[in-house]
Amino acid sequence: MLVVLTGIPGTGKTTVATKALEELVDEGVKYDLVTYGDIMFEIASNLGLVEGRDEMRKLESKEQRKVQRLAGNKISQIAEEKDILLDTHCTISTMKGFLPGFPEWVLRGLSPEVFVLVEADPAEIALRRSSDKSRQRDRDDEKEIREHQELNRSIAMSYSIFSGCTVKIIQNPQGKVDEAVAELKKVLRK
Amino acid sequence: MLVVLTGIPGTGKTTVATKALEELVDEGVKYDLVTYGDIMFEIASNLGLVEGRDEMRKLESKEQRKVQRLAGNKISQIAEEKDILLDTHCTISTMKGFLPGFPEWVLRGLSPEVFVLVEADPAEIALRRSSDKSRQRDRDDEKEIREHQELNRSIAMSYSIFSGCTVKIIQNPQGKVDEAVAELKKVLRK
Amino acid sequence: MLVVLTGIPGTGKTTVATKALEELVDEGVKYDLVTYGDIMFEIASNLGLVEGRDEMRKLESKEQRKVQRLAGNKISQIAEEKDILLDTHCTISTMKGFLPGFPEWVLRGLSPEVFVLVEADPAEIALRRSSDKSRQRDRDDEKEIREHQELNRSIAMSYSIFSGCTVKIIQNPQGKVDEAVAELKKVLRK
Repeated sequence: MLVVLTGIPGTGKTTVATKALEELVDEGVKYDLVTYGDIMFEIASNLGLVEGRDEMRKLESKEQRKVQRLAGNKISQIAEEKDILLDTHCTISTMKGFLPGFPEWVLRGLSPEVFVLVEADPAEIALRRSSDKSRQRDRDDEKEIREHQELNRSIAMSYSIFSGCTVKIIQNPQGKVDEAVAELKKVLRK
Repeated sequence: MLVVLTGIPGTGKTTVATKALEELVDEGVKYDLVTYGDIMFEIASNLGLVEGRDEMRKLESKEQRKVQRLAGNKISQIAEEKDILLDTHCTISTMKGFLPGFPEWVLRGLSPEVFVLVEADPAEIALRRSSDKSRQRDRDDEKEIREHQELNRSIAMSYSIFSGCTVKIIQNPQGKVDEAVAELKKVLRK
Repeated sequence: MLVVLTGIPGTGKTTVATKALEELVDEGVKYDLVTYGDIMFEIASNLGLVEGRDEMRKLESKEQRKVQRLAGNKISQIAEEKDILLDTHCTISTMKGFLPGFPEWVLRGLSPEVFVLVEADPAEIALRRSSDKSRQRDRDDEKEIREHQELNRSIAMSYSIFSGCTVKIIQNPQGKVDEAVAELKKVLRK
């Protein structure tokens, strides 16, 4: 079982995922939370392409594609033995536009069963991003955030044609994280 | 000639289709109206997976995919001999999210020439659904209906990349069914 | 390097492209601006399918697909020797709905590296179209223009799954063509 978890920075997807997985342990449901970016960084580091994490977004698109493919292969291997919740990006915002997180050659290898989009209100996302000083983040305005979420919905629907996965949209509005966690648990239960 | 006709419950697509086909008979244009759900139910019944029609939505996604594929094969066979207007769903709303009505393995077999989306105003759809007691239907609110129609547009555009079909959006607002019928007739004429 | 440039009529994409290419010459960056429609018209003329340019939109969909594919092949050949900025349509509005500009069999042959969508405000586009008497254009209203741009975004995201290209959206609001030109130059620089 491979469930892909996406959501643009500031949607709180990782918090939702962590809580859902903790609570599911009591029900005997166990997933390994794997972060695509971690695997990509590990591979890019090994290849000598980057030194720090923040350099990942500055990779040339050709290099980014190679690293993305190699990471997909590695995750496929892991998913053969364990149930995986894959924390990743639906699309990646680059200098030259939006890069698909799951181009065909990655998607066909992975074949997820569910593709989750965690969304939040664009105004809330903008606020969360502006107060988050721990990483270099663009101060995208609300309009860009809204558009990015819409484009992600579009491409997620297309991903489902290739893999036959379902696409689940989970709203994570401020102060209602428990509802988002409950929705994700429904997806993860067998 | 295979034309796919979709529209979420409450858009009135079946009414539009029935009227269009009746009127086209006078012009010597004849299509068989085939309902994907009927073929799927027939197959699922034969396989012993369901007893009643309402159980179809509760099928596990693995079973749903199998039945979907087998129904696609059957429709392909029918379409080799007759012109078909295929009444179906663009996406299917399940517990685990939206399932594509036409995953790659169904789409490539069918190769429709036109993909029609019948749409209506979300408020009107919500009203029609609430007064329709003949089938078990969720009381989705307007927002969910609006989103579902938007996601269907997205995925329909993607379907067209695989099949090269055109995507025709037909509005069916309250009290203007004749205009929707006229639009569909334009699509169905050779 | 193949960059695809799209934008519905009235967005000013060709003006943006021409200015960007002129300015890049000073930086030693050179692209040939190739218009898909020109290549398609050339091929359709040679095949005896049309006499004038305005007849292109009235081609039967079967013929349109054939011409589209042959044009794609020709552009692939050109792109093997030069950097190409391909001026074309994301989708083509026909009597039977929206036809994809890049069905799978065209897309796989071309493999663009960036897919650009030039957009403008629907009200501005409607205004520009109504005062443009040089070609036969439909007076689509703002709502249709808005929808067409949204559908183009959706399908562009799907194109990226097949080719791994990035999708860059460039706004070209009235009176700010220099900003749009600057954005396109960022995409075209190596």
